Amino acid sequence: MASNHESLVDFLSISTPMIESPTKPNKTTELHHVAGKKRVIIEHISPAVEGGLYPAKRVVGEKVEVEADVFSDGHDVVKAVLLYKFASDKHMKQIPMEFAGNDHWKASFIPDKKGFYEYTVLGYVDHFITWRDGLKKKFEANQNVSVELLIGAEMLENTAQHAQGEDAHLLREWARKLREDHEHSMASGVTLALEKEVSRVMYDNYDRSNATTYPNVYKVEVERKKALYSTWYELFPRSTSPEPGRHGTFRDTIRLLPHIKEMGFDVLYLPPIHPIGRTFRKGLNNALTANPGDPGSPWAIGSEEGGHKAIHRELGTLKDFQDLIWIAGEQGIEIAMDIAYQCSPDHPYVKEHPQWFKWRPDGTVQYAENPPKKYQDILPINFETEDWENLWKELKSVLDYWVEKGIRIFRVDNPHTKAFGFWEWAIGEVRKNEPDVIFLAEAFTRPRIMERLAKIGFNQSYTYFTWRNNPWELKQYMLELTKSPMRDYYRPNFWPNTPDILPPVLTHGGEAAYIMRLVLAATLSSNYGLYGPVYEYNINTPYPGKEENLDSEKYEIKHWDWDKETRTKEILIMINQIRKENPALHNTWNLHFADVENPQMIVYGKNDEASGNIILVAVNMDPYHTQGSWVRLPLKELGIDSYRSYVAYDMLSKSRYTWYGEWNYIELNPYQIPAHVFRIEQ
Amino acid sequence: MASNHESLVDFLSISTPMIESPTKPNKTTELHHVAGKKRVIIEHISPAVEGGLYPAKRVVGEKVEVEADVFSDGHDVVKAVLLYKFASDKHMKQIPMEFAGNDHWKASFIPDKKGFYEYTVLGYVDHFITWRDGLKKKFEANQNVSVELLIGAEMLENTAQHAQGEDAHLLREWARKLREDHEHSMASGVTLALEKEVSRVMYDNYDRSNATTYPNVYKVEVERKKALYSTWYELFPRSTSPEPGRHGTFRDTIRLLPHIKEMGFDVLYLPPIHPIGRTFRKGLNNALTANPGDPGSPWAIGSEEGGHKAIHRELGTLKDFQDLIWIAGEQGIEIAMDIAYQCSPDHPYVKEHPQWFKWRPDGTVQYAENPPKKYQDILPINFETEDWENLWKELKSVLDYWVEKGIRIFRVDNPHTKAFGFWEWAIGEVRKNEPDVIFLAEAFTRPRIMERLAKIGFNQSYTYFTWRNNPWELKQYMLELTKSPMRDYYRPNFWPNTPDILPPVLTHGGEAAYIMRLVLAATLSSNYGLYGPVYEYNINTPYPGKEENLDSEKYEIKHWDWDKETRTKEILIMINQIRKENPALHNTWNLHFADVENPQMIVYGKNDEASGNIILVAVNMDPYHTQGSWVRLPLKELGIDSYRSYVAYDMLSKSRYTWYGEWNYIELNPYQIPAHVFRIEQ
Repeated sequence: MASNHESLVDFLSISTPMIESPTKPNKTTELHHVAGKKRVIIEHISPAVEGGLYPAKRVVGEKVEVEADVFSDGHDVVKAVLLYKFASDKHMKQIPMEFAGNDHWKASFIPDKKGFYEYTVLGYVDHFITWRDGLKKKFEANQNVSVELLIGAEMLENTAQHAQGEDAHLLREWARKLREDHEHSMASGVTLALEKEVSRVMYDNYDRSNATTYPNVYKVEVERKKALYSTWYELFPRSTSPEPGRHGTFRDTIRLLPHIKEMGFDVLYLPPIHPIGRTFRKGLNNALTANPGDPGSPWAIGSEEGGHKAIHRELGTLKDFQDLIWIAGEQGIEIAMDIAYQCSPDHPYVKEHPQWFKWRPDGTVQYAENPPKKYQDILPINFETEDWENLWKELKSVLDYWVEKGIRIFRVDNPHTKAFGFWEWAIGEVRKNEPDVIFLAEAFTRPRIMERLAKIGFNQSYTYFTWRNNPWELKQYMLELTKSPMRDYYRPNFWPNTPDILPPVLTHGGEAAYIMRLVLAATLSSNYGLYGPVYEYNINTPYPGKEENLDSEKYEIKHWDWDKETRTKEILIMINQIRKENPALHNTWNLHFADVENPQMIVYGKNDEASGNIILVAVNMDPYHTQGSWVRLPLKELGIDSYRSYVAYDMLSKSRYTWYGEWNYIELNPYQIPAHVFRIEQ
Repeated sequence: MASNHESLVDFLSISTPMIESPTKPNKTTELHHVAGKKRVIIEHISPAVEGGLYPAKRVVGEKVEVEADVFSDGHDVVKAVLLYKFASDKHMKQIPMEFAGNDHWKASFIPDKKGFYEYTVLGYVDHFITWRDGLKKKFEANQNVSVELLIGAEMLENTAQHAQGEDAHLLREWARKLREDHEHSMASGVTLALEKEVSRVMYDNYDRSNATTYPNVYKVEVERKKALYSTWYELFPRSTSPEPGRHGTFRDTIRLLPHIKEMGFDVLYLPPIHPIGRTFRKGLNNALTANPGDPGSPWAIGSEEGGHKAIHRELGTLKDFQDLIWIAGEQGIEIAMDIAYQCSPDHPYVKEHPQWFKWRPDGTVQYAENPPKKYQDILPINFETEDWENLWKELKSVLDYWVEKGIRIFRVDNPHTKAFGFWEWAIGEVRKNEPDVIFLAEAFTRPRIMERLAKIGFNQSYTYFTWRNNPWELKQYMLELTKSPMRDYYRPNFWPNTPDILPPVLTHGGEAAYIMRLVLAATLSSNYGLYGPVYEYNINTPYPGKEENLDSEKYEIKHWDWDKETRTKEILIMINQIRKENPALHNTWNLHFADVENPQMIVYGKNDEASGNIILVAVNMDPYHTQGSWVRLPLKELGIDSYRSYVAYDMLSKSRYTWYGEWNYIELNPYQIPAHVFRIEQ
C-alpha cells in the first residue's frame, strides 16, 4: 500500500502524523521518535503552568520538586533522570529520579539564585540493571547463569569503550573477572555483579543514545524570599498627623516607622499618594457630592497638579517620599505603593490623551459604571484604544518611574479591569530589569481571572480567605491553594480586613474574632497583611447594609492615638515575633491538617525540613463559645516521632504540654484566647 | 529603562517573553496578543488529549462537546464561539457557545462522516450586548437613556458598514429609529434595542477584529460506528470440527456462522491462524514439553511453512479464510484477526532477519523470560535493533497484507511489549489508507501504558473490568473510564473471560456469576466480548493455583457440542437482542449511576437523546444470596419526568413495574436471575 510519507524518517521527524498540535515540538528539537529505537515515553511533567506556557514560581532556597510519568514497553528496567540548569548556564545538571509507584518519578533541586531555571526529564531502558536483577533471580532459583555472566561482561566492555580513566579501567577489570567466573565460579560472578560500585560506574557511563529526552523544557522563575514571606501593614499616610485636624504627611509616617517595626511588619503599604481629583469628588461615607474640605478618595487619581507620577501636595514632596522609602528600609520595612490605573476627570491624561478614554455622543467622557450604578469620579482607561501601544508604554513608564525612585513592591488595584496582555508585558519588562520587584494583585473577582493574573506574572495575590469562615470551607480552600496546580503559580497574601472590607465575622465576633482571624492569616499564609490601626483597635461598625467600615478612612482623614494598647495589638506583636522566629511559618506550602472531631475548630501543622522547626496551630473558629475537641495530629507528615512523647509549647500562653501519640484533646475559650500556636519540642 | 525588545510588537509576536514553551504557538499562527486590543483569554479547551498531541476519538453521529474557559478583564459581556470543520474543508463553521457558569462555555457538533475534524474557540467582548443589558437596567431605574440610545445607534451604523444586503439595510433603519427615539420616546428606543431580531443581526455581523482565536487547533478522529458498538465472540477454529478427533477448519467455522449470528454477535475473533512452531512447543496444560500430536499454542507463531502471512495448513487455505471473511460478512459478522508480533524459534524471520532478535554469547537466540521463568517457545522481537526501519516496514506489511485480504479488525496481542513508536506509526499509516480498520489493544498491564496505547491510536482497549468485582470498585472504574480525560481517547471493550483469564468470581459463583458478569459487560460497555463456548457452558475448573482454565484450549483441540442449551446461553441471546434493539446501549459514555443503599448491588441507567430510548439496569453482584435495596434513580440525568409515574419494563423477565419518583425498591435472587434490564416507558 502506498504511504503518504516518503520514508519512516519523514514520519519520525514530524513526531505525529495526525495533528498540528499545540505541544508539537519544533522540528529542530529532539523528538520522542527521532529514532525508532527510543522506547521510553515521558508524560505529565510537573510543574508545568498551563502546559508550560508560563513559568512555575519559587523563591531562592525553595525546593523545586519535578515529577513525571516515565515508562517503556515490555519488562525492562526503566530509569528517569531530572535535567535542570540556571537558564544562562550552558549544561544541564543531572539528578536520578526516584520511582514513586505507578510509573511515576520524582526528583528535586533547590535553586540558589534569582532568575529562571529550566528543567526537563530524560528516560532510558537500563539493560544493565535489567540484566543484574534477572541474574540474581536466576541464581537464587539455582539456574545455570554461566551465559548470563558473559552477557554482563559484554555490557561492561561496551560501556568501557566510551568511559574514561579509572572508570574504563574498572569496567574492563570487572568484565575480565566475570569472564573468568563464568568458567569457574558463578557465585563469585553474581556477587561482583551485585556490587553497588559496579552499578554506580555503569550509571555514570551508561550509553544513553537510545534515551528519550522530553521535547519541551519547562521553566521556573526564582524570586527573592520576600515574595513568599512578608508581613504587611496598610495605613493612610494622611491620617498619621499627631495633631488632630492637620493633614498627615510622609514626615509623620516616618515618625511612625519604629511603631510599625515594633509591631513586627516588614512591608508598609500606602494607598495612592497622587493628587486627588475634584470633579465628582466623593464626600464622607462615599456621598455623591463632597462638602468643601472633604479630602476625597485617594483612588480618584489625578488633578491639575498631576497624575500617576505626581505626589499629593499635602503629603509632602518627592524628596519626603524618598526619605520615607530610605528610612523605612533602614528599619527593615519596604514601602509598597498602590498602582491604580484609573483617572479622575481632572487627570492630565484626559486632556493630553483623550483617545485613551471613551467619549459619549454628547461630548462627555465615559465614567465607570455598573448599570444602573454610576461612578462619575472615576474614568476607566479604554484598553481597546487604537493608540494602545502608546498607552501601554505610558502606563509602564509609571512603574519604571517609581522603581527608579526606590519602590520594589507594587500593590495593584483591580488589575482584572485592565487588559491581561498589558500586565503580562509590563510585569515581564519591569522584572527583567529589576527582578526584585513584587506585584501584588488586588483582584477580588472570579477564580479563573484571579488565577490568570497570577499565571501571567503577579507575584502575590489577594484571596478569598476573608470570606472563609468555617473550618471545613477554610480547609477546602487551603487544599485548593496548596495542593492543586495553583500551588505552582498562585502565591496567596491573606488579609483579614482592608479599607474596602469589614467582614461580618469581625462586626459580630468582636475582639475574639479579630484575634482568631489574625492568627489564621498569619500562620496559614506566609504572606499576610492588615489594614490598621482599624484592625488592632477592633473598629467594626459597618456602614448600614454594607460589609465596609462606617466613616471609612477612604473618604476622610482620621486622627489615631497610635499608642493605644489593645489585646489584639498585643497578640499581633506576639504573632509577628513568632513568625520571625519560626522558619516553618515562612512557607505556605508545608501545610498539613489534623483530623478534628469538633467542626468549629481547625488544627494544622507546618514544618521546615532544613531547621527541623515544627509548628502546630489550633484555632477555635467560633468567636462566641468555648470549643474542645479530640484531635488527630499529622505526626508523620510533620516529622514527629509517634513512638516518643513530645512537648507542645504554646508560644502565646507560654505554657507547655507533654503529649504522646496522634490523639490529643484541645480546648479553647475565645474570651481568653481563641488559639494555640505551639512549637513542638522533641 | 532599557528594554530587550525593540518594540511592543516584538513582544507581542513572540507571545510571551519568558519561556520557550511546549504550547508556544508557531510564529505564523495568530496569537493571544498579536494586537494589544484583544482582551479575551481562552484556556482549557477540551477535548484535548495530551494537550492536543493526539486526537480525541468519536464515531460518526456521536456528539463532540467542546468546552473552554473564556473570559475578559472588566465587566463587559463576553461571548464565545466554537469554530470547527472537517479537516479538508476550507472554512470553519461557527456555533455560539453556551455559558455554563464560572467562565466556562460549551458547544457541540455532530460529525456526520469519517475522518478528522478540527476545532478551536473564539472569544470576543460583545459591546452591543453590554450596551443593551446596561440600557435595560438604566431604563428600569428611571434614568435618562437619551445619550445611550445615540451610543446604540452609532454601534448599529458602524456594524452596518461591513454588513451586507438586508442586514445592512435593517441595521441602518434601526439606527435611524434609535436616533429618532432619542429625541422623542426613550421607551420605544429601549423596546427596539431589546428585540431579538436586533441582537441576531448584530451577532451575525459583529465586528470581531478584536476577537481572540485560540492559537491551537485541536482534532477529533471520527471513526465508523463499530469502533464504539460491537459484540465479540472468540473461538478457536481448530475446535470447530463436528467430528471428535479431527482438526477444525475454516470450512467448519463457516458452518458455525448461523449459530454465532443467532447468538447475536457481530465480530468473530480468531486466535492466530498461522503455522505453529515445533521447537520448545508447549504440551497440554502449558507443559514444557509437548507429546507427539500435541497441537501447540497458536501464539507460538511461525514454522518452516511460514510466518505471519501464512496460514496453518490444517485450518485450510487462504481461499478458505477469505471465504470465511466473505460469508461472515454476508451475515453481518466481521472477522477479527489476532496480531501477535512474536516468533516461535522456527519462524522464517529467525533465519532471514537474525538481526531482529537478540543473540546470546553461546550463539543461541534470546527467548522470552520473566526471570527466573523462561518462555523458550517464544522469541521476542528486539525493537532496539539497528535495523528497526526494515523491521517496522515488515511488521506493517503484515497488517497491509491482511487488510488487502479483507480484514478490518485486528485484536493486537500484548501491544505493550512492542515499541510505542511503532504502533503510532503503523496504525496511523494503515488507517490513513483504510480508515475502517479497528485495532483492539490486548494490554493487561499498568494504567499509564494502557492509556498511552489508546492515545497513540488503538481504537478499542481491553480493561480491568474482569477484576472489578464489587459495586463500589466497579462504579469507581466506570467513572474513571467515562468521566475522566480517558473518555476522549480510551474506548473500552469488556471481556468477562478470555482464554487466558478465568476470574475467581466465575470459578466460585457458578451460573449466577456467569449471567451477572455477562449482563454487566454487555450493558456497561457498548463494546464487549466473550470467549466461548467455554463461557456460555460455564466451564470453570481452574488450573490449580491459577486464574486460568484447566485443560486450556490454548494447548489442545476441543470438541464442542455447539447445540447445547444453557441458561447462560439463553440470557446471552436475550441480552444481545436487547442491545440491538436499544440505542441507549450503543454508547458507553451515557452512563448514570443510581444511589443504592445495599453495597452488594449496582444500578445504572443509559439514555439515547436522539431516540428517547432509556435503559435501566440493576444487578445483584453477590452470586450467592438474594439482595434487595432502596434505590434512588438518576431520573433527571436520564430524562425521566419525576412528576409522572413511569413504567419499567424488564426485558429479561418480561414483567412491568409502575414506578413514581426517584426512590424504588429492587430485589434480585441470583438463582432466578441476578439482573433486571428495564426499558423505561413514559
